[in-house]
Amino acid sequence: MLTVYGDIRSGNCLKVKWLLDRLGHDYRWVETDVMSGVTRSTDFLRLNPCGQVPAVVFDDGRTLAQSNAILGFFGEGTPFVPADPWERAKMYEWLFWEQYSHEPYVAVVRFQRAFVGKSAGEIEPRLMQRGHAALDRMEQALADRDWLAGDAASLADISLVAYTRMAGDGGFELTGRPRVRAWIARAEACLGLPPYSGFA
Amino acid sequence: MLTVYGDIRSGNCLKVKWLLDRLGHDYRWVETDVMSGVTRSTDFLRLNPCGQVPAVVFDDGRTLAQSNAILGFFGEGTPFVPADPWERAKMYEWLFWEQYSHEPYVAVVRFQRAFVGKSAGEIEPRLMQRGHAALDRMEQALADRDWLAGDAASLADISLVAYTRMAGDGGFELTGRPRVRAWIARAEACLGLPPYSGFA
Repeated sequence: MLTVYGDIRSGNCLKVKWLLDRLGHDYRWVETDVMSGVTRSTDFLRLNPCGQVPAVVFDDGRTLAQSNAILGFFGEGTPFVPADPWERAKMYEWLFWEQYSHEPYVAVVRFQRAFVGKSAGEIEPRLMQRGHAALDRMEQALADRDWLAGDAASLADISLVAYTRMAGDGGFELTGRPRVRAWIARAEACLGLPPYSGFA
Repeated sequence: MLTVYGDIRSGNCLKVKWLLDRLGHDYRWVETDVMSGVTRSTDFLRLNPCGQVPAVVFDDGRTLAQSNAILGFFGEGTPFVPADPWERAKMYEWLFWEQYSHEPYVAVVRFQRAFVGKSAGEIEPRLMQRGHAALDRMEQALADRDWLAGDAASLADISLVAYTRMAGDGGFELTGRPRVRAWIARAEACLGLPPYSGFA
């Protein structure tokens, strides 16, 4: 059976869980606390030399890392990957943008606030500026569409909703971004998720 | 005709140029100096709201951004994308890793040194540590293989060679990484590139 190493509080890990659940895959979830140092242990580094979760391990020992690459592997051939080459390319554009221009700000600030316990004043202003810019970019992109790529929910929506719905944990308010909020509700409904209630 | 907006000194832009050249695509290259502020102009932001190069524009006005998404769009169906789903997934794993764990250190330090003119002492130590970790990870991955994903050159090699061959510009020495150096030479030969001679 497929094994997924993940921290249930991490958006990058939840993305993978949501897709596997939505597609009805059987898997074993190994809860892996990113704060415990276990992802830097020799055993874990043998699985994933990058020392990151999520990582999925197949029965034959093959391991795949990088949340969005995992989404691509399981999403291929399902309605979550558009068949049209152009829509598919736009989906991947969002997936790469998520890891370069959204996660390093929106998720990193959330991590520093909720996991590390920093106060708002201890967050580097540049991280807040870029996180707000990423959320503004999404608000703009959703002006004339319900989903980020193509006419239906795709991996781009699954990937981006993970940390966007948690943006408030990092002090990023979504109240002035009505399209993002409506899109979060659509994506949550599609994935069968209750509204996010904040870092517990 | 396809139009490519790019800065010829940028590895992210060169990746796209190399693949298009290798595949024999016709395109118009619009040299776009990232230091001039033009990528923040209203006209450019209309093309790519992220204000980044590379960006490719098709005859009908559609625009695609994110270097690795562009590689995926043009690489699909060519020998640079493995047909095997597993090798393909590993290729995407490297592509996402490149943008999250390699480019933000190896390319960013090069940018600060070569474009901005910072001295070695002005570079944040964390950036150097993570850049070295990325290069070490590649040296380890190349221990038992000639190419990063599958048995032939793929988009992963095209993407990663871009800034890896330029690592010296940022003060990252490759002398202690013989497998990376041999792989760079293989990738350059595959792409018809002369050895990189440093930032001019």
